[in-house]
Amino acid sequence: MNYRMMGKFIGRILYVEAVFMLPALLISIYGKEGQTIIGFVISIAITLATAAVLSFICRKAKKGFYAREGLVCVGISWIVMSLLGCLPFYFSKEIPHFIDALFETVSGFTTTGASILSDVEALSKGNLYWRSFTHWLGGMGVLVFVLAIGRGREKSDGYTMHLLRAESPGPKVEKLVPRMKDSAKILYFIYVFLTILNIIFLLIGRMPLFDAVCTAFGTAGTGGFGIKNNSIAGYSPYLQNVCTVFMLLFGVNFSCYFMLFIRQVRNVVKDEELRFYLGVVVGSILLITWNISGMYASFGESLRHASFQVASIMTTTGFATTDFDLWPSFSKAILLGLMIVGACAGSTGGGFKCGRTLLLTKSLRRNVRQILHPQKVQVVRVNGQMVREGVLDNMNAYVAAYAFIVVFSFIVISIDGFSPMTNFSAVLACFNNIGPGLEGVGPTCNYGGYSILSKLLLIIDMLAGRLEIFPILILFSKSTWIRR
Amino acid sequence: MNYRMMGKFIGRILYVEAVFMLPALLISIYGKEGQTIIGFVISIAITLATAAVLSFICRKAKKGFYAREGLVCVGISWIVMSLLGCLPFYFSKEIPHFIDALFETVSGFTTTGASILSDVEALSKGNLYWRSFTHWLGGMGVLVFVLAIGRGREKSDGYTMHLLRAESPGPKVEKLVPRMKDSAKILYFIYVFLTILNIIFLLIGRMPLFDAVCTAFGTAGTGGFGIKNNSIAGYSPYLQNVCTVFMLLFGVNFSCYFMLFIRQVRNVVKDEELRFYLGVVVGSILLITWNISGMYASFGESLRHASFQVASIMTTTGFATTDFDLWPSFSKAILLGLMIVGACAGSTGGGFKCGRTLLLTKSLRRNVRQILHPQKVQVVRVNGQMVREGVLDNMNAYVAAYAFIVVFSFIVISIDGFSPMTNFSAVLACFNNIGPGLEGVGPTCNYGGYSILSKLLLIIDMLAGRLEIFPILILFSKSTWIRR
Repeated sequence: MNYRMMGKFIGRILYVEAVFMLPALLISIYGKEGQTIIGFVISIAITLATAAVLSFICRKAKKGFYAREGLVCVGISWIVMSLLGCLPFYFSKEIPHFIDALFETVSGFTTTGASILSDVEALSKGNLYWRSFTHWLGGMGVLVFVLAIGRGREKSDGYTMHLLRAESPGPKVEKLVPRMKDSAKILYFIYVFLTILNIIFLLIGRMPLFDAVCTAFGTAGTGGFGIKNNSIAGYSPYLQNVCTVFMLLFGVNFSCYFMLFIRQVRNVVKDEELRFYLGVVVGSILLITWNISGMYASFGESLRHASFQVASIMTTTGFATTDFDLWPSFSKAILLGLMIVGACAGSTGGGFKCGRTLLLTKSLRRNVRQILHPQKVQVVRVNGQMVREGVLDNMNAYVAAYAFIVVFSFIVISIDGFSPMTNFSAVLACFNNIGPGLEGVGPTCNYGGYSILSKLLLIIDMLAGRLEIFPILILFSKSTWIRR
Repeated sequence: MNYRMMGKFIGRILYVEAVFMLPALLISIYGKEGQTIIGFVISIAITLATAAVLSFICRKAKKGFYAREGLVCVGISWIVMSLLGCLPFYFSKEIPHFIDALFETVSGFTTTGASILSDVEALSKGNLYWRSFTHWLGGMGVLVFVLAIGRGREKSDGYTMHLLRAESPGPKVEKLVPRMKDSAKILYFIYVFLTILNIIFLLIGRMPLFDAVCTAFGTAGTGGFGIKNNSIAGYSPYLQNVCTVFMLLFGVNFSCYFMLFIRQVRNVVKDEELRFYLGVVVGSILLITWNISGMYASFGESLRHASFQVASIMTTTGFATTDFDLWPSFSKAILLGLMIVGACAGSTGGGFKCGRTLLLTKSLRRNVRQILHPQKVQVVRVNGQMVREGVLDNMNAYVAAYAFIVVFSFIVISIDGFSPMTNFSAVLACFNNIGPGLEGVGPTCNYGGYSILSKLLLIIDMLAGRLEIFPILILFSKSTWIRR
């Protein structure tokens, strides 16, 4: 294992993290938030010091960076980043328990949006900003960012490839352009552009600038931290609809935007994952609108809440305009289904991913055909291209790991004694990076009641969900650490 | 598709079914149960007539019987068998709605034990006997029975193999002895022997003969239909413990008994699936005993209820000695986990099967190792033998189908408006052939409240669960029916 190379890279990430804490510090200085200022100053100092020490120790890194190193490096980076990222909450004493602060930060970086806070509005502006910003940074991936801004001294593109592959969501990672580094730049360019567009549309609806920026961060990263206790419910219907549209936009595979940009419109229109995603969205909205129509004053209002909630859950954002835990069982069942499916691969959304669901369906159909016609060689195609068996193997391993983690976590957190649906939806909501679940962790409730053990497990679940299991799973594997 | 061969075979099954209805008829004659006698006479007549017509039409069957025919034949046989098997309930007017009667019968044959009846004790003895007997017949498989008693005119062993493979549970079907027909005979011999042993032990505990026979049928098939409204709760602790032990025995792979019989004790002791099964059973019993210890008068009572319920759920039987829906969340979570895992492959129990869970774990570990060491060829071994990739592919397809069916069924039956945990546990309990779930379908409740649509879907789930998905799934596939 090339520890020095990993250390060097983690050092660079921490420098970036420290720099990103500065705007939050400035906001707290501007608001004269005494304790928060102290919190950020200490946190920035510790982060910079850690970065400096790591960079110094690991300055002489050898070459040789493989898939294994990529996965381990991504797993450890996210853990270290979260451990340091939670310091502002802790040192400002606004989240006095360290595990709670860590939970909130991991929930931020992984774009989950699950909170242990019962009164979000009590937080200082500086902390609110940092809390929402973790979503934005985690959405596209901080390693991708570091790679995008890096000066490209590394000649080997494989190095970048392994890291990007480990951090990016979806069954397979495609290069947009021949050089991986340029792909990372293009992704961030689209991300920044859409975020700014989102802020502008929110400002048009007369949302205050601070609210608009934080809400856009939560939307762009498909995170879901709101800055109000009632999430998005207090804003005007126009603003809610803007959120709906942008949540859906950020749930689309970013390579679709790139293809639009280079005018390959036909490829976008024919993209099977995009069709599947939109189909599920429209179908779910119609069914839920029909199902909840008796609960709201007009058809329009039902449609607005249904669209918002479908977009919010399917893209794994987790904002709420209404307490969907009060909806009929059928609507709740659909939402639980959407929680699992999740957004498109290559988007900022989490979950199992539409692309993978599609692949699973096709692979299942292939297997049924294989039983019917054992002599014929059957292949799986997506968008007309044959899918390699390696990708399918990987997907199957993913499904298996997914099932084990969900069942295991569900049983363990049940020790705390909450209702089975609370626990089950809590695990689904954390692992799929959504945020709110049903019953005891519904949109009007929070995760504060869980024990430390359960919170730690849910933290691992959130990280495993965001990084698509293997970078975290591999940290628990003996053969990762033992040299043969 | 060789329809004639299939028709001929289904005809034979129906003859057997009609014969098996006779004891129930005799019991109802002995008890002078007027309407039930009429019900059985009509049912036997219809079943015999159908069998005769089918056998006549399909008397000139061509050769050629492949895996595809085997699957379709098994799927259709079970459906036809259930449609005719439910007639006694219907014509005796004790279950006046046809879909309810069908639900009860499918629940019987698939050894689920989910009931739509709120007052079981109101049934006539004849119907109670038939209801419990469906468990016994479905447990080992009616096709296996037909094959075992067949005169062996078919020279090709492949014919038998395809049918047996389609009906028997587990990731792979092994022959016990070179001839498949002899294997079927040995399996039924063990089955009958253990059932009689069970009856004797129940009689020793002074259970009335009728109760003992019906309870043994429910235990042997790991079905779970009781003949009392409070299931097994009214019987003495000794009788409850007898049930616990025999449920566990019927959840073991029957090939283990055969190996014991031919004195290959070492193979049994080293059997990985058996070890896994016993490990999970013991672990779950200890955890639940600890968790519920405050609810019962003594440690012994907690242990007895915990053991009984773990055995009942893990083997997918579904008997109850206590209302486990009142247990703490942790215990309920463990039971939900056990629902999914299920019994051993090659037993009469349902669920995902221990063997498959073990295989899934190993396959996942293989994939993690493959990521760590991409150059090395990694294989999966069970009991020291390499598992073929085909078996793993099949298992992965099974997992995918399992997930789709559970999510789809959960969403559809939620239309009826019961609580999410009721619906989720109802699907798990039907699909894994357990019977009782949690909340609205808990051990003191029943499935009578669901709509016809939901009942039909749960009927399909029960069949899909018992036949391990593909024989039912394939009936919905276009390419099964269209000739190319």
